[in-house]
Amino acid sequence: MTVKSDIEIAREAKMKPISQVGEKIAVPGDALLNYGPYKAKISAEFINSVKDRPDGKLILVTAISPTPAGEGKTTTTVGLGDGLNRIGKKAMSCLREPSLGPCFGVKGGAAGGGYAQVVPMEDINLHFTGDFHAITSANNLLAAMIDNHIYWGNKLGLDERRITWRRVIDMNDRALRSIVNSLGGVSNGFPRQDGFDITVASEVMAILCLASDLKDLQRRLGNIVVGYTRDKKAVLARDLKADGAMTVLLKDALMPNLVQTLENNPVFIHGGPFANIAHGCNSVLATKTALKLADYVVTEAGFGADLGAEKFLDIKCRMAGLKPDAAVIVTTVRAMKMHGGVAKNDLKGENVAAVAKGCENLKRHIENMRKFGLPPVVAINQFITDTDAEIDAVREAAESVGAKAFLCSHWANGGAGIEDLARYVAELADSGQADFKPLYPDDMPLWDKMNTIATEIYRASGITASASVKAQFKDLQDAGYGHLPICVAKTQYSFSTDPNLRGAPTGHEVPVREVILAAGAEFIVAVAGDIMRMPGLPSVPSAEAIRLNDQGHIENLS
Amino acid sequence: MTVKSDIEIAREAKMKPISQVGEKIAVPGDALLNYGPYKAKISAEFINSVKDRPDGKLILVTAISPTPAGEGKTTTTVGLGDGLNRIGKKAMSCLREPSLGPCFGVKGGAAGGGYAQVVPMEDINLHFTGDFHAITSANNLLAAMIDNHIYWGNKLGLDERRITWRRVIDMNDRALRSIVNSLGGVSNGFPRQDGFDITVASEVMAILCLASDLKDLQRRLGNIVVGYTRDKKAVLARDLKADGAMTVLLKDALMPNLVQTLENNPVFIHGGPFANIAHGCNSVLATKTALKLADYVVTEAGFGADLGAEKFLDIKCRMAGLKPDAAVIVTTVRAMKMHGGVAKNDLKGENVAAVAKGCENLKRHIENMRKFGLPPVVAINQFITDTDAEIDAVREAAESVGAKAFLCSHWANGGAGIEDLARYVAELADSGQADFKPLYPDDMPLWDKMNTIATEIYRASGITASASVKAQFKDLQDAGYGHLPICVAKTQYSFSTDPNLRGAPTGHEVPVREVILAAGAEFIVAVAGDIMRMPGLPSVPSAEAIRLNDQGHIENLS
Repeated sequence: MTVKSDIEIAREAKMKPISQVGEKIAVPGDALLNYGPYKAKISAEFINSVKDRPDGKLILVTAISPTPAGEGKTTTTVGLGDGLNRIGKKAMSCLREPSLGPCFGVKGGAAGGGYAQVVPMEDINLHFTGDFHAITSANNLLAAMIDNHIYWGNKLGLDERRITWRRVIDMNDRALRSIVNSLGGVSNGFPRQDGFDITVASEVMAILCLASDLKDLQRRLGNIVVGYTRDKKAVLARDLKADGAMTVLLKDALMPNLVQTLENNPVFIHGGPFANIAHGCNSVLATKTALKLADYVVTEAGFGADLGAEKFLDIKCRMAGLKPDAAVIVTTVRAMKMHGGVAKNDLKGENVAAVAKGCENLKRHIENMRKFGLPPVVAINQFITDTDAEIDAVREAAESVGAKAFLCSHWANGGAGIEDLARYVAELADSGQADFKPLYPDDMPLWDKMNTIATEIYRASGITASASVKAQFKDLQDAGYGHLPICVAKTQYSFSTDPNLRGAPTGHEVPVREVILAAGAEFIVAVAGDIMRMPGLPSVPSAEAIRLNDQGHIENLS
Repeated sequence: MTVKSDIEIAREAKMKPISQVGEKIAVPGDALLNYGPYKAKISAEFINSVKDRPDGKLILVTAISPTPAGEGKTTTTVGLGDGLNRIGKKAMSCLREPSLGPCFGVKGGAAGGGYAQVVPMEDINLHFTGDFHAITSANNLLAAMIDNHIYWGNKLGLDERRITWRRVIDMNDRALRSIVNSLGGVSNGFPRQDGFDITVASEVMAILCLASDLKDLQRRLGNIVVGYTRDKKAVLARDLKADGAMTVLLKDALMPNLVQTLENNPVFIHGGPFANIAHGCNSVLATKTALKLADYVVTEAGFGADLGAEKFLDIKCRMAGLKPDAAVIVTTVRAMKMHGGVAKNDLKGENVAAVAKGCENLKRHIENMRKFGLPPVVAINQFITDTDAEIDAVREAAESVGAKAFLCSHWANGGAGIEDLARYVAELADSGQADFKPLYPDDMPLWDKMNTIATEIYRASGITASASVKAQFKDLQDAGYGHLPICVAKTQYSFSTDPNLRGAPTGHEVPVREVILAAGAEFIVAVAGDIMRMPGLPSVPSAEAIRLNDQGHIENLS
């Protein structure tokens, strides 16, 4: 059997004009700002006009701790939206926008896979509607205004050594991680250490994803701390008068993007903050708008449930007043095997014992969802090599902690392969079982918030920190930022801070190495692992093979 | 009298849906790729489908040597298109895209002015259809692949000291002019000197503007010289296998953008290469497509006629096989006064003698157009302070060298203010007087080409160069690049290389300081002045005042 590549399947899609896709959720033609025939932004006027409608049900798709075997969270989010539509529900999915840079490295895009994809896949993975470019421009305008302010006399007294605002570019480019800028003499400014992050890591991206409207966007942009004076007074983007122009640059980017699945169902793809340095969820505005337009909204959060779902719930839902109704935890037999101790090269062949052992990871994520008041269900993303006994082992593990598990073949069969899960999820969301509450209250001190996450979600013995990091916690608390939620930057591969510690470790310590204020996004990043702010390209980057073929189609983008 | 700002006039425009604008030039709806209701790209299929149609008449709008008083070339290009439509001709204009970065500095956008503007002005001046962002991405992908190649072993043997490819960003940011990259240790690569140019200065921009189709685009991108080995062998983008992915990134950007004037007439705005480091004209594809759709196509070239028109004719028209039918030289009474020796602060009050003296500059540009076989006509862009006697002085000067001059009030009155010129231009273009020929043949040696431009167009005594620059000429000639045209980088303010030498100097020497190969764009840049590759922001950048007002309109963008 020849398996078609994602791009081949996507290219065979029978796309409908985006106005017809909009009709499914009653979005009128004049509310659509088209970007070619198959992409559109939803107008701010229309979004405002529906804001008093009742909300549909919100379903979070999250996952076990990821392994190199892959789990298929985006694919399941897309497939579940299709499945809900197939069983007659008015449903849509809300995804994150993929980053341009990584498409030229290893990973490729992020528009689902197999027969659970969002199209036009090439456009979505490349420039799409320009949102990331707008974020890059806004981020870098602020950076240019910082150095320009210093150049022309530095009235605000910015300390060149304490500038925290970095430039960004949507490219995997390790050469820009650490630079010295403003070389070349008087007319080029004062040389200082600087560097570029990838655009998704920009605080502007997180802000765009959390802003409730243009006014809130500008307020948050103005609050960005760009650096400090010699006496450690914070200097804000507002002090540089950069917030107005940044908002102008982001005006269109703030509007959600409508596209379709291979089955012509509506999907919003909007915003894509890094799941480590930021909260890793699609935009509040897209999710909230979708809830006004559909009866069931399926959305995803980055990494495993310990990181992604926790941030979705404690940051995004808390800030936006969202109340999710159910949580789908995606797993695969292969990933359970790896959590059970099997190496990636040994995944072939039945190994029920390893699956059962690895399911400790799944079970903990299930239990954790209940701590937030969410009823959980497990989606087993089927692989052709899975055996019945292995699948049963996953089912039994889920049931042992009171959750149902459904075998899903949406990758191979689209919405038809995920109908059982769709039916159950709709029931679960409608059942009123959910009683969402964040893990910790706003007024808990920052240190205690981090400790609560570590003990309750990671099942660690507690957090540790050096004296200087403890002082950072105290400084932020004293400076009036104590009410903000915590955004943990930690390895996604383990509940612990050791990426090789699979399964369900307990009793470990979580060392917090650094605390970073995101005053515009309104969270505190607690760094308990490596933060990747700028990826590099591999020795043979995908870019070398990406090209147009003689028919004008893009080859080797995936 | 309160004079409305450009943005106020633009905001009051009664825009038509872009499909209706397309109907004026018989572009069917399915050939339009909409970007919102008022912007569209023309599909590659449609462009291909009209390529065997006969061409309309091509009219170049150029100008006297610019002065700080301004001349209004883009405004006249827009106004003349409107004027031709008003007198019943099927006409359209082809403009360059404005750059995002400078909008936040001093200058503002470039969408015309007064009642001769192109709309939606805010969109055009900001992200527009993303072309510049695509160029930034393609340029920087190549840059990332260069450093990545070195990082992973440098099989091609690139000499880190001889890398000529720079990164770009669409922002005025002097801090990035000169940097050291790849600092921070082993995992970040090998530190080397580097820098950023503004996006319009990228060779990718020039290539996009000169490419005849996607295949030609990829061929040219592959030919880019990114640097040299230790033994000075050129390394090409093709050697890094970057050309395919760069083409993919530029696939949509290559298609011309359709917008409208305030009078709802069609305009292509596409491509905007710097007029010093590059040739400064809008894209070949836009101009050629416009010639298939309209009977009269009005287009502009950067700076004064000595630089802009010369490059338009010797580079763009030569490469693309375009045969322009007439040249409009824009001037103002105020600018003639400045060429006659009056300072900017003394422009008020009649001064016929100074106008007459300054017209030596105009007369030479008129004569120069004849050297290319183009019949010239003068457009006097009216200011409210111009007196009849001053206007007559300009007319007389033009007539003394056999050219007519027309007083034009399109800035104040739109197309109605430029009907006389429009009638005459249509006659001139239809008359068959034009017999276009480039200034020099392809097979003339590079040195002689530059000397020909200097003596024939600038009326210099000749060119001079150091021994090392002479060697550069010889090396390029020997390396097989001798057939390429010359792209002069020189001050636009004078026929000479001294920006303060106004009027019509003769006998001066033109020192060539550097020669740069643009192997993808297929020209040789001869540097005879300062090259601005990256502007800075002023002490109070426009960005500080640009913002959304309470109605959601952009304030202070101009």
